[in-house]
Amino acid sequence: MLKGKRHGRTALSREELADLDAHWRAANYLSAGQIYLMSNAMLREPLRPEHIKPRLLGHWGTCPGLNLVHTHLNRVIKARDLSALAIWGPGHGGPAVLANSWLEGSYSETYPDVSRDEEGMDRFFRQFSFPGGVPSHVAPETPGSIHEGGELGYSLSHAYGAALDNPGLVVACVIGDGEAETGPLAASWHSNKLLDPVHDGAVLPILHLNGYKIANPTIPARLPEEELDALLRGYGHEPLHVTGDKPMEVHRAMAAAMDEALDRIAAFQHEARDAGRTDRPRWPVIVLRTPKGWTGPAEVDGHPVEGTWRAHQVPLPGVRDDPRHLRQLEKWLRSYRPGELFDEQGRPRARVLACVPEGDRRLGATPHANGGLLLRELPIAPLERFAVPVDKPGSTMHEPTRVLGQLLAQIMKDTGNRRDFRLVGPDETASNRLDAVFDASGKAWQAEILPTDEHLARDGRVMEILSEHCCQGWLEGYLLTGRHGLFSCYEAFVHIVDSMVNQHIKWLRTSRRLHWRAPVASLNYLLTSHVWRQDHNGFSHQDPGFVDHVLNKSPEVVRVYLPPDTNTLLAVADHALRSRDYVNVVVAGKQPCFDWLGIDEARAHCARGVGVWEWAGTETGECEPHAVLACAGDVPTQEALAAAELLRSNLPELVLRVVNVVDMTRLMPKEEHPHGMPDFEYDAVFTRDKPVIFAYHGYPWLVHRLAYRRAGHANLHVRGYKEFGTTTTPFDMVVSNDLDRYRLVMDVIDRVPGLGARAVAVRQSMADARTRHHAWIRGHGVDMPEVAEWAWSG
Amino acid sequence: MLKGKRHGRTALSREELADLDAHWRAANYLSAGQIYLMSNAMLREPLRPEHIKPRLLGHWGTCPGLNLVHTHLNRVIKARDLSALAIWGPGHGGPAVLANSWLEGSYSETYPDVSRDEEGMDRFFRQFSFPGGVPSHVAPETPGSIHEGGELGYSLSHAYGAALDNPGLVVACVIGDGEAETGPLAASWHSNKLLDPVHDGAVLPILHLNGYKIANPTIPARLPEEELDALLRGYGHEPLHVTGDKPMEVHRAMAAAMDEALDRIAAFQHEARDAGRTDRPRWPVIVLRTPKGWTGPAEVDGHPVEGTWRAHQVPLPGVRDDPRHLRQLEKWLRSYRPGELFDEQGRPRARVLACVPEGDRRLGATPHANGGLLLRELPIAPLERFAVPVDKPGSTMHEPTRVLGQLLAQIMKDTGNRRDFRLVGPDETASNRLDAVFDASGKAWQAEILPTDEHLARDGRVMEILSEHCCQGWLEGYLLTGRHGLFSCYEAFVHIVDSMVNQHIKWLRTSRRLHWRAPVASLNYLLTSHVWRQDHNGFSHQDPGFVDHVLNKSPEVVRVYLPPDTNTLLAVADHALRSRDYVNVVVAGKQPCFDWLGIDEARAHCARGVGVWEWAGTETGECEPHAVLACAGDVPTQEALAAAELLRSNLPELVLRVVNVVDMTRLMPKEEHPHGMPDFEYDAVFTRDKPVIFAYHGYPWLVHRLAYRRAGHANLHVRGYKEFGTTTTPFDMVVSNDLDRYRLVMDVIDRVPGLGARAVAVRQSMADARTRHHAWIRGHGVDMPEVAEWAWSG
Repeated sequence: MLKGKRHGRTALSREELADLDAHWRAANYLSAGQIYLMSNAMLREPLRPEHIKPRLLGHWGTCPGLNLVHTHLNRVIKARDLSALAIWGPGHGGPAVLANSWLEGSYSETYPDVSRDEEGMDRFFRQFSFPGGVPSHVAPETPGSIHEGGELGYSLSHAYGAALDNPGLVVACVIGDGEAETGPLAASWHSNKLLDPVHDGAVLPILHLNGYKIANPTIPARLPEEELDALLRGYGHEPLHVTGDKPMEVHRAMAAAMDEALDRIAAFQHEARDAGRTDRPRWPVIVLRTPKGWTGPAEVDGHPVEGTWRAHQVPLPGVRDDPRHLRQLEKWLRSYRPGELFDEQGRPRARVLACVPEGDRRLGATPHANGGLLLRELPIAPLERFAVPVDKPGSTMHEPTRVLGQLLAQIMKDTGNRRDFRLVGPDETASNRLDAVFDASGKAWQAEILPTDEHLARDGRVMEILSEHCCQGWLEGYLLTGRHGLFSCYEAFVHIVDSMVNQHIKWLRTSRRLHWRAPVASLNYLLTSHVWRQDHNGFSHQDPGFVDHVLNKSPEVVRVYLPPDTNTLLAVADHALRSRDYVNVVVAGKQPCFDWLGIDEARAHCARGVGVWEWAGTETGECEPHAVLACAGDVPTQEALAAAELLRSNLPELVLRVVNVVDMTRLMPKEEHPHGMPDFEYDAVFTRDKPVIFAYHGYPWLVHRLAYRRAGHANLHVRGYKEFGTTTTPFDMVVSNDLDRYRLVMDVIDRVPGLGARAVAVRQSMADARTRHHAWIRGHGVDMPEVAEWAWSG
Repeated sequence: MLKGKRHGRTALSREELADLDAHWRAANYLSAGQIYLMSNAMLREPLRPEHIKPRLLGHWGTCPGLNLVHTHLNRVIKARDLSALAIWGPGHGGPAVLANSWLEGSYSETYPDVSRDEEGMDRFFRQFSFPGGVPSHVAPETPGSIHEGGELGYSLSHAYGAALDNPGLVVACVIGDGEAETGPLAASWHSNKLLDPVHDGAVLPILHLNGYKIANPTIPARLPEEELDALLRGYGHEPLHVTGDKPMEVHRAMAAAMDEALDRIAAFQHEARDAGRTDRPRWPVIVLRTPKGWTGPAEVDGHPVEGTWRAHQVPLPGVRDDPRHLRQLEKWLRSYRPGELFDEQGRPRARVLACVPEGDRRLGATPHANGGLLLRELPIAPLERFAVPVDKPGSTMHEPTRVLGQLLAQIMKDTGNRRDFRLVGPDETASNRLDAVFDASGKAWQAEILPTDEHLARDGRVMEILSEHCCQGWLEGYLLTGRHGLFSCYEAFVHIVDSMVNQHIKWLRTSRRLHWRAPVASLNYLLTSHVWRQDHNGFSHQDPGFVDHVLNKSPEVVRVYLPPDTNTLLAVADHALRSRDYVNVVVAGKQPCFDWLGIDEARAHCARGVGVWEWAGTETGECEPHAVLACAGDVPTQEALAAAELLRSNLPELVLRVVNVVDMTRLMPKEEHPHGMPDFEYDAVFTRDKPVIFAYHGYPWLVHRLAYRRAGHANLHVRGYKEFGTTTTPFDMVVSNDLDRYRLVMDVIDRVPGLGARAVAVRQSMADARTRHHAWIRGHGVDMPEVAEWAWSG
């Protein structure tokens, strides 16, 4: 029964209805078959225990609903020649999405050994959730998918990401009522405030209320309908209800709702595109209320199953051992009348396929779900146009992210017609000093605009919302459908999406191993407003641990860069934006920072990832250095160079080498990461036995974790952030964490033997400087002049 | 102007109104003063540059709104003798909350050196955002606070956590319109579906729409009012609007809205408590719409500031250098008429304090914000009642979390009247096999209940929602107000709250250093359904990295336990639940697991945190072992003991030591963590120079990171999870990640010199077993009998 706002009935002939139902039954049969059977897929014989998989792993509950949606999407895609993509929020219902792909043929085209016939069906059933087979969730292996069905909450932001700058695309997004309880999903409803009906495609959310999570009812399903409608209207949507448990009635209602929704979408797009209407459309949402585990066993062992949480996973768990369960399973499977659905060779009959669209229109075959096929090279202008001139290291300063903003602005300009580049961030583009991009694109905004607003634009490609979850989800959806982008974020708060980046890295790792998935643009993070410069915000905004987090993940996907100045940031960004299938984490400051390298040197340095800065050390080439002072990150590099200068002027006899690390993974063994240095190279840079004082941007033990296998590891002494922070000056921050120039000088002196009395005196003067700092800072609130005015004079 | 649903006017006399306004002006004056002044707090002299702080750090924009709310909360608290707690979502408006605390006297009582007079005011201004002073955000240092104002999104879940089981408490929660865009906040609106009007207190959300984030309008502020109202009604609230920019009108409207809201709350509570009404109340929400930076400079340098995003931080940035800015600041400060507000000694005048309540009723003095004061010992029954009997190690199996469930059930029972223990989790209590607790308490649920539902109860103290953010926020709020609890979560998905636990650890770290904050119960995580047993869910559900994440944080707060069996889990849980001011991460499986230790041994083993299991090794005490086989975690312990058995039976001449680690921080140096072993102890357990093969539950490099300074580190070889996973059998998982018994035997053989030809043959047979596994598993889908049926026979 179709309820809610009245809308025109779609007139389905009896035959069309029967065809739709046949497709749905076939998909249900194939879903259940995958969960249970390892042979006898066509039920040619009565079911015996040996036909049943020894371990029953999968989720039945959501499958019938997903199959219903897929069947009806097929119908409207074919009827309207739609370009459509589907996001399956309840992706743990993997059997459903797989079943549909097999039915439409896209599965066998992708995996020819799983043919669309009886032999293929046998294989198709057996491989599911079976060692060496396919995962039980929607996954990279699933044709037509860009959305892993494991961790819930991101379906709708992925859908919006896919729809952006795809004006011809309709993205249908099934949201489970469990997923609807999550924060990320709740936030992403408001994505419609940034969706441009002119330049973007449409998102059709389908909220599937089957009523239950693993073991509980869901909140959305237990809201009175007027309260749920108020919620959806508050999200900016107009609900269309489809409620029922009688298949034919639900088919009719679903077909009508789909048509109504697509008609409205088409009308909104027409008004915006052709009639210049600018008010925000109230886009339709379909609320589909059907029983969990619909058409499965109504009761098992005296407990109600269909329509309850008991249908979530495997409704008949004991089929291999319990003959009654086995008979019940057989009855259930035969209730779909497989003989009507598949011919003698196990191929779907014409009636089953009547609703299925052709070629690329099929949801399992759309190139939008294999975005690398659609990806174009990003136009990146020569870096020389943006690079800052560096006559002498450390004699000038620039704000690295501000200069990067000019490069990004040029990319924005150069993609103005193509519209395949987006910048996302949680309200921080200007704060992170990337505001040059606003010369090339405004910020996407479809709500009210006031005269005092700046840079808001209906067609903007900068996307800001105070939700890192939305930023991440949009960008993932955008990249996986074949476009480019960058996420700029406060360093500390990128932890908000730790779990999302986990999933994206897992997705890329698996995708890279699939021959048929074309490489997509990397997910690029610019982490700025970093731990050392939280002057306004203090302790709560200080956390450099995202690097540690991503470095736990697959090395073939993860890259981490800490450019020490403006030109190195440009070089790293250029590389990251051109790369494929990576997650690039770039940490760079927005505050004025010394310029160390000209653009050519910067390029070469970043390509090596690590290098000796001869000009900063005191080596003459006659002997090995007495000590190595290494650094990674902009603030540590500044402190290390200040320390190098203090050592040079106070202890000229000390032979010091200064090393800068841009690419943290260079420190890892070659066997552990593709960028890892071979030992001979590491030893050549860091020595095998000299003390190495390493000033690192983040948690110091990370460097040990990366370098523990190196010969010189026992001599490695790392300084970094150790959770001492508050609202204070930048220099007070480095002193508090023992990363300051004076401390680094002391560290070197403490570790180089035989330096003599002079060194003792120098060490004391360093300790005195720290004491002086402590006294000064509490009195004046700004750094003492010798620190505030320091510049490299080497 | 008060808009929205009509409700009775609160009749305020002209004098009352003037008093409220005086309090508000005083708070505004004190807020601005903190941001700008380092002396001349009372403006006795014309402002000169040297009165101004050299660095202006703070957030003005939200302060006037927070001050308005605080003023009006004061009024109703006093008028109704309310027990109230306030959560300040826009906690970066620290100056406002500090100002109110200073005004009411709670600040000076907490920090006597900052007295409530002119000298104190000078100090109060100077210390704000000043090195050695106080943070710019609401923080642990702020009296009356339980909510850090840095990372946005958690105010409302903290408020609900505080209100649970506090039937006499009203928790007012100011939500900024920026914060309202976040996912965690969006999810937490639905907390009202779990709030029991009988046993819980009330939450009064106050959505403050000042219109702007850092550099953008906010989405909620730009929704048409009927759409916003629909959204709030969809969340289950009835909105009361207060809109305006004329102070006296807003005071009148705010007073009326507060009274209306509290009347409704009282009526709902009365109906539920005294009249037995069980339908879910539509609790009030106040929507407060006032200008950002209200009463601050209207325009600066020709740009509008008041009422725009430009008022977010410091509206007049150039006061120290620009005489016009300085004059504008002085005019602004004097606009509050400080002479009317403070007497000659700088003390607030009686009129200013007329609305302020007394003693513990003051928001800065409520013991609910210093929950340790209210904390009672948790009754924990003797573990012997739940412990499983262990006659011989490895001869029986139990599901550790299922047994823990019985302990938790008893605690639930024993706190049935006190109601100060809660179990939270994202729909996983039963899945995690803790369902024994349902004998003692149902699951909190205020929405519709159907006959097929199980364990739902209006007064339940188990809280389930498919939002880890809500679970975490509720529990934090509950603990910080002086109660106890446990968060049970799938191991992989606890990363969803990485950023929240960061903030909680930072909170605890700072609180521990404040003499006036009483210790609170620890935040206890039970991470189960872990990486090795994702048979149903596969790769997306596999991530053991939360341990790595928390170990980056302050060691005085963080504890990590990996109990290897049922009785050790009981012992660890007992310890964690009794502890204070920690974050305890306990990782334990739910699947049947061998019982290794009786309860007494388990207690002793967990107290030591690491120990040699003599019965599992082959040492006779005559010589040092040839190798150490260490393990941490339930599955690695099983594989390590299987390996030990293989070694014993195949290579009896090999002297093997088996070490089990429960407390991971024992591996750290003593200087780095309070639990760290001194070197002599580490060496005694692990040896200084023998090969150590370490089978670890999570990412293997974590062990290196913890132990890199140990003498024997070069001989340490760690196996663990390295991101190889899918839907498969448990043994296939360990084989895929080289953590299986056969691999461990090979690792030992490879590292012990001089074992001879027999060892070569044994090694080959182990490699053969792995090959056998690979062939078997693809064919059968279950583990081969020698693995599936293995039990310890030592």
